[in-house]
Amino acid sequence: MGKIDTIRLETLQKKMAEAGLAALVCRLPENVVYLSEYWPVHGFSFVVYPQKGKAMLFVPEAEEELTNPDWADVTTFGWGLLKDGDLYENYRRLLTEAAEKLGLKGKKVGVEQSWEVTGPTYRAAEPVVPGKPWHDLMASVFAGSTLVDVFDFLSGARSTKTAFELEKLKIANEIAEMGINHAIAALKPGMTETQVGAMIEAKIRGDGPGYKGAVLVRAFAEVGAGPVGSTKGTLLIPSSTYKMQEGDIVMIELATVVDGYFSDLTYMAVVGQPSARQKEVYNHLLAAQQAAAAAMRPGAAAGDPDKAARKVLDDCGLGQYFVHITGHGIGRRYHEFVPFLLPGADAKLEEGMVSSVEPGVYIEGFGGLRIEDNVAVGRDGPIFLSTPRKPW
Amino acid sequence: MGKIDTIRLETLQKKMAEAGLAALVCRLPENVVYLSEYWPVHGFSFVVYPQKGKAMLFVPEAEEELTNPDWADVTTFGWGLLKDGDLYENYRRLLTEAAEKLGLKGKKVGVEQSWEVTGPTYRAAEPVVPGKPWHDLMASVFAGSTLVDVFDFLSGARSTKTAFELEKLKIANEIAEMGINHAIAALKPGMTETQVGAMIEAKIRGDGPGYKGAVLVRAFAEVGAGPVGSTKGTLLIPSSTYKMQEGDIVMIELATVVDGYFSDLTYMAVVGQPSARQKEVYNHLLAAQQAAAAAMRPGAAAGDPDKAARKVLDDCGLGQYFVHITGHGIGRRYHEFVPFLLPGADAKLEEGMVSSVEPGVYIEGFGGLRIEDNVAVGRDGPIFLSTPRKPW
Repeated sequence: MGKIDTIRLETLQKKMAEAGLAALVCRLPENVVYLSEYWPVHGFSFVVYPQKGKAMLFVPEAEEELTNPDWADVTTFGWGLLKDGDLYENYRRLLTEAAEKLGLKGKKVGVEQSWEVTGPTYRAAEPVVPGKPWHDLMASVFAGSTLVDVFDFLSGARSTKTAFELEKLKIANEIAEMGINHAIAALKPGMTETQVGAMIEAKIRGDGPGYKGAVLVRAFAEVGAGPVGSTKGTLLIPSSTYKMQEGDIVMIELATVVDGYFSDLTYMAVVGQPSARQKEVYNHLLAAQQAAAAAMRPGAAAGDPDKAARKVLDDCGLGQYFVHITGHGIGRRYHEFVPFLLPGADAKLEEGMVSSVEPGVYIEGFGGLRIEDNVAVGRDGPIFLSTPRKPW
Repeated sequence: MGKIDTIRLETLQKKMAEAGLAALVCRLPENVVYLSEYWPVHGFSFVVYPQKGKAMLFVPEAEEELTNPDWADVTTFGWGLLKDGDLYENYRRLLTEAAEKLGLKGKKVGVEQSWEVTGPTYRAAEPVVPGKPWHDLMASVFAGSTLVDVFDFLSGARSTKTAFELEKLKIANEIAEMGINHAIAALKPGMTETQVGAMIEAKIRGDGPGYKGAVLVRAFAEVGAGPVGSTKGTLLIPSSTYKMQEGDIVMIELATVVDGYFSDLTYMAVVGQPSARQKEVYNHLLAAQQAAAAAMRPGAAAGDPDKAARKVLDDCGLGQYFVHITGHGIGRRYHEFVPFLLPGADAKLEEGMVSSVEPGVYIEGFGGLRIEDNVAVGRDGPIFLSTPRKPW
């Protein structure tokens, strides 16, 4: 994985040429990692990406050791210490030099404007994003160029993944599953939802780094247990101090990020042995999930996997409980919008697209169940990036 | 803690009146929690805050159970399910109704514009912030009003904390210390930095909820060990898979958030017994930290605590290794900018201001040490919100 993902970069530069973009200037971590394979620690890094040639990556001095010079020419700037000057003055100088070097005067330059949902930096405790100060600076530095919003352009370009990217997403899923398997094996009555979530996160945070080259790893687990608690998972409502009881159905919703690549999984478990009804509902849901995954084929409509899942659930009388979409894109965010497996969506699925596949049913008095894996559209059919489940 | 923090709200509304602000419309989690005592889970919530009367809090339906109606009139909207309409159409309708109800036509309305560093939502895996779509919407809905940027106005208002807020910050620190004490007691050779960090986070995430009413709790720990690893802590560089050895100095940097209130601590430990030189440097640094804390008095300059710390370190020949500021505000962000304990800063410290107090020395070949507590400016002197350290 040390080598460059030439296919990704050549495809993007071709799309930039078609769109008449001389360069991109990106600071959102989701795009910085896409363009330079560096997942920013603090959110002050940025990339100037030319239509031809190598990415220019600008990072605080302390972060240099985490960058990969095969991917980008790295320039550092002072940040955070008494010796360091004003950040925005540093930005102005570096951007001005880059614009001159690439000859961007009179050219079209892509920037990130129309977004509200984004991927985190590694230091997720404190989002740092390009805001008004950055946009004002861009307008000033690139006064002689034409700035255009490329947020959607990049989301589209990012939506089809290369073999390199699929391998990275697979590693993120493998690390995520370490945490889930660890906690499910330890489940017992009396544990709180928060404690189970904490076990999952600790396994991933503690032992994920070092696994197949992983460096920066984070995990965010929410757990809901029992007939009421498990239905909270419908919309990612946080774990509580509810104590698990024998027979409780347990929903585990987990986001894992490995060097900027996301896994998004939902697992179900039961404290002790599942009841006949729990098995029955789980197995119906699994059949729906597998039907949706089977529809992840090139040329299919984004609504097809949803339709397939909904048919299975309708046929066994559970359709009314499936109240959300079947899946969303995944890559460098917890939730990406391409593809979007919405009922009736007619956008075409393309080879390399990756989606969560996550039908769920939420039944009052019984509980909420969701089975979520990450599946790529392969040339000959679906490719599971997480481990396909077995019936209960 | 169930009651309203009347002093906070009355003080703010008085400041709004002085600034001629008829209302504030805020969506950044750091401000939503300030105005409504609700820490958003997803980042789609917002508050309309009038110069007179009760806050209006708007949240996705699933989050309603986490809000406190004593603090705000809560209105819900659909988000995330098939039944729910377009989010921005919902926003437009709700904002238009609120503007009409409060009669904001022709008035001055405060919005969040000039920011780049902000506090997270509970769901830190996916920052959701007011961006261009929100600002465009605000400009349209409030076309008949005058929109002004209140980001700095609110940072200033937030900088002096009430007894209610100090108690919340103290609870965050108590929960943070549970995690740190748990891990320091377990430190032994062979553990990796990432494993120690994971232990801290797991203790806090697992057992923090429920402690003195805490509900939503997150922790972000980074650990650096040994002469080289510990100096990474200078600028929050991530934990690695380095395995601790007997005698290693260990730096633990920890952010903890409890219902939107932050603790920011740095602890030092040694694997096994500290050497004479480790003790000596630690105790000099502690003296510097205590001198800085003692200068946290109303009317002092923000540069005074820094000066006090630097003098102690200069006097024992360690001043050259203290390369960063002495502290920063803390409250609803990991790092707030009021107060800012920078050399020579002449802004006045006021009663209720809270700052990290964190001198550090980073000595090549020996290691990095920092001692960080959270200290409030009390009427009669400093109030430690975290537990003051003892000499080694």
